[in-house]
Amino acid sequence: MRAEIIGVGTELLLGQIANTNAQYLSDKLALEGAGVYFHQAVGDNLERIQQALTIAASRSEIIVLTGGLGPTEDDLTREAVSRFLGRNLELDAGMLMKLEQLFAGMGRKMPTNNRKQAMLVEGGRFLDNPRGTAPGQYIEADGCHYFLLPGPPTELKPMVTDHVLPILRDLMGQQGTIRSRVLRLFGIGESAMEMEISDIISNQLNPTVAPLASEGEVTLRITAKAASEEEAFALIIPVEQQLRQRLGKYIYGIDDETLPVTVGKRLKDRGETLALAESCTGGLLASMITDVPGCSVYYKQGWVTYHNEAKSEQLGVSSDILAQHGAVSEECARAMAEGARTRAGTDWAISVTGIAGPDGGTNEKPVGLVYIAVTGPGGTTVKQFNFRGDRQQIRIRSAKNALYSLVRRMAER
Amino acid sequence: MRAEIIGVGTELLLGQIANTNAQYLSDKLALEGAGVYFHQAVGDNLERIQQALTIAASRSEIIVLTGGLGPTEDDLTREAVSRFLGRNLELDAGMLMKLEQLFAGMGRKMPTNNRKQAMLVEGGRFLDNPRGTAPGQYIEADGCHYFLLPGPPTELKPMVTDHVLPILRDLMGQQGTIRSRVLRLFGIGESAMEMEISDIISNQLNPTVAPLASEGEVTLRITAKAASEEEAFALIIPVEQQLRQRLGKYIYGIDDETLPVTVGKRLKDRGETLALAESCTGGLLASMITDVPGCSVYYKQGWVTYHNEAKSEQLGVSSDILAQHGAVSEECARAMAEGARTRAGTDWAISVTGIAGPDGGTNEKPVGLVYIAVTGPGGTTVKQFNFRGDRQQIRIRSAKNALYSLVRRMAER
Repeated sequence: MRAEIIGVGTELLLGQIANTNAQYLSDKLALEGAGVYFHQAVGDNLERIQQALTIAASRSEIIVLTGGLGPTEDDLTREAVSRFLGRNLELDAGMLMKLEQLFAGMGRKMPTNNRKQAMLVEGGRFLDNPRGTAPGQYIEADGCHYFLLPGPPTELKPMVTDHVLPILRDLMGQQGTIRSRVLRLFGIGESAMEMEISDIISNQLNPTVAPLASEGEVTLRITAKAASEEEAFALIIPVEQQLRQRLGKYIYGIDDETLPVTVGKRLKDRGETLALAESCTGGLLASMITDVPGCSVYYKQGWVTYHNEAKSEQLGVSSDILAQHGAVSEECARAMAEGARTRAGTDWAISVTGIAGPDGGTNEKPVGLVYIAVTGPGGTTVKQFNFRGDRQQIRIRSAKNALYSLVRRMAER
Repeated sequence: MRAEIIGVGTELLLGQIANTNAQYLSDKLALEGAGVYFHQAVGDNLERIQQALTIAASRSEIIVLTGGLGPTEDDLTREAVSRFLGRNLELDAGMLMKLEQLFAGMGRKMPTNNRKQAMLVEGGRFLDNPRGTAPGQYIEADGCHYFLLPGPPTELKPMVTDHVLPILRDLMGQQGTIRSRVLRLFGIGESAMEMEISDIISNQLNPTVAPLASEGEVTLRITAKAASEEEAFALIIPVEQQLRQRLGKYIYGIDDETLPVTVGKRLKDRGETLALAESCTGGLLASMITDVPGCSVYYKQGWVTYHNEAKSEQLGVSSDILAQHGAVSEECARAMAEGARTRAGTDWAISVTGIAGPDGGTNEKPVGLVYIAVTGPGGTTVKQFNFRGDRQQIRIRSAKNALYSLVRRMAER
């Protein structure tokens, strides 16, 4: 069954918020085997919501509307669906009483505005919303299934799990599921990768293979449609093996195993510890590492040594190195990493020093020049990088390459 | 002029990423007076991209497509626009050379795949993309203006500023403008704020006043439509003054003055310096501070002391404090901040220590318990917080409250 999501709300069109409801619903619906083919977003305008419904009903069987179920004048989703389907809005006495009780429980009288939240599209049924005053609605009409859900994600998400997905499962019966395996690659560009596997990509229909690039990382998503999870993975695994034969050396993780998660997993498995010495990444690398729950097992400490004095005093980088080679140099990176490892008493240490810009670059040492050192069992290795991009990109790429350098070093022994 | 944004990419429909490009563009276009009336998102499918174009061209004059300009087979935006408009795709020799030089600069040969990025829709022109290999395109056809932009936000954003907005300004000539003033608040919840100013919100049509909450911060956006920037601000300023009378004590900045920017600006103005000592935020606070260009003037260094030993060895937190009060205590926060300030020789230091979870909480010290200390001219102050939310939320709220605590301390003297 084809699904489509219509986000209703002028705040979406003003760019005040991102349409994260569409992302959440797309992910959940795909797992149930209901492929989402289109998103739309429209403002709080009766005519344009109806226009979106006309388009959606012409091409999709499952239509999920988010937003516009509040009590105020610009909450128009109920009205638009009622007009579009040519069905009345009817006051539901049970729901009205429930809403009145809800307000009474908060020690308040229900504003008359909220009465409209008890109006049900003829032939539809309410979907309970335990976190707000806006109940959802489900209506079947002319072969289409309409779900009306409130906009706030904290209200919408549990309603998707508790009401929308169970109804979809019933509807689709044996229609199966969509499952994915994500392969995570580093050290290869998107187009170079695609050339290695273009025959696999173009010959696959089920599963499909889709590349995606993001700030120096590349992922390959293998997606299969099948009657069951087992059957989906039976389709995915041979393709995964084929891809691993060609690209294995670039693959460092699968699914949710991002670089920080992979680093953490491997350190934990080996019972080893890590320290960090950052200059241009300025805490970003530490932040990525410590974003992973349970990182205190392997992560001991970090220094953000932005100034030269800090590099000397905190990490023992000699004034000779700073005077002769400067803070952005192979020598300084090495001394920072080794100083951090010794002082923290860890198995491994990583250092990053470079020029993130926009200022501070010279002809000899341009913006984007970054040195990354990894020290641990087996010695110290330093790599030079010349990153393109703005301050943010250079910082992100530096941090990711630092993590990947450690993954490679750990793989060596 | 009516504008419409079409996001192209199966990753949007699979819920892998949120359509933040649509949000960014909506915000920027509104500022230029080009109201966005619709968003669409479609997958990497030639037929469905053309279908989206048909719908858009029937109702909008400015059509911005994002994504699908990469070098791979599923990058189909160029092709779809060419077919929809009935115009050829032509290889541009100049762009081809430029791409080849770009790869040569990275010491690599250009993969043949990338040739397609030098294909221009007949009659269009390229929009330079200094951060990637995918140039944008601008085409005028049958009264519609088509902008083709790459999907990665770090590439798209500067192209919007440098190319799309200047073209729109030319197109719209005297059509007027939409201007906003954003007031940034901290220390008050969204609904409490709304109650303070509900009369102002509901009585305003031009300018409008819209509240928005995000992770402990609240912003108020005052938006005016007028013939010129001057006239727009003449409408905005009296409302801003009214809001400041009610909420002034919570307002720390305007427009792009986020907390890290505000902290940097004030430190720079005062000629003072900062050091950081982080435990549960794990580098996130340092990363926020160093994300601001030019921060090296005031930011000297930071420690991410995750383990107790690091707190003692690096910051001089006494073993008595750790034994008697534990690492998550007012006493430890105070000692961390004071140790950081002394060792870094800065005017100010901030420390954060707490339990970000999901594990590590006890009845006495639950997940979300965080102590934040600020030390500087005038002594040391420590505050206790009990944050709700998951690990990520607790870390972000801790870092933001740490920044805000410093802003408040600096305001005192």
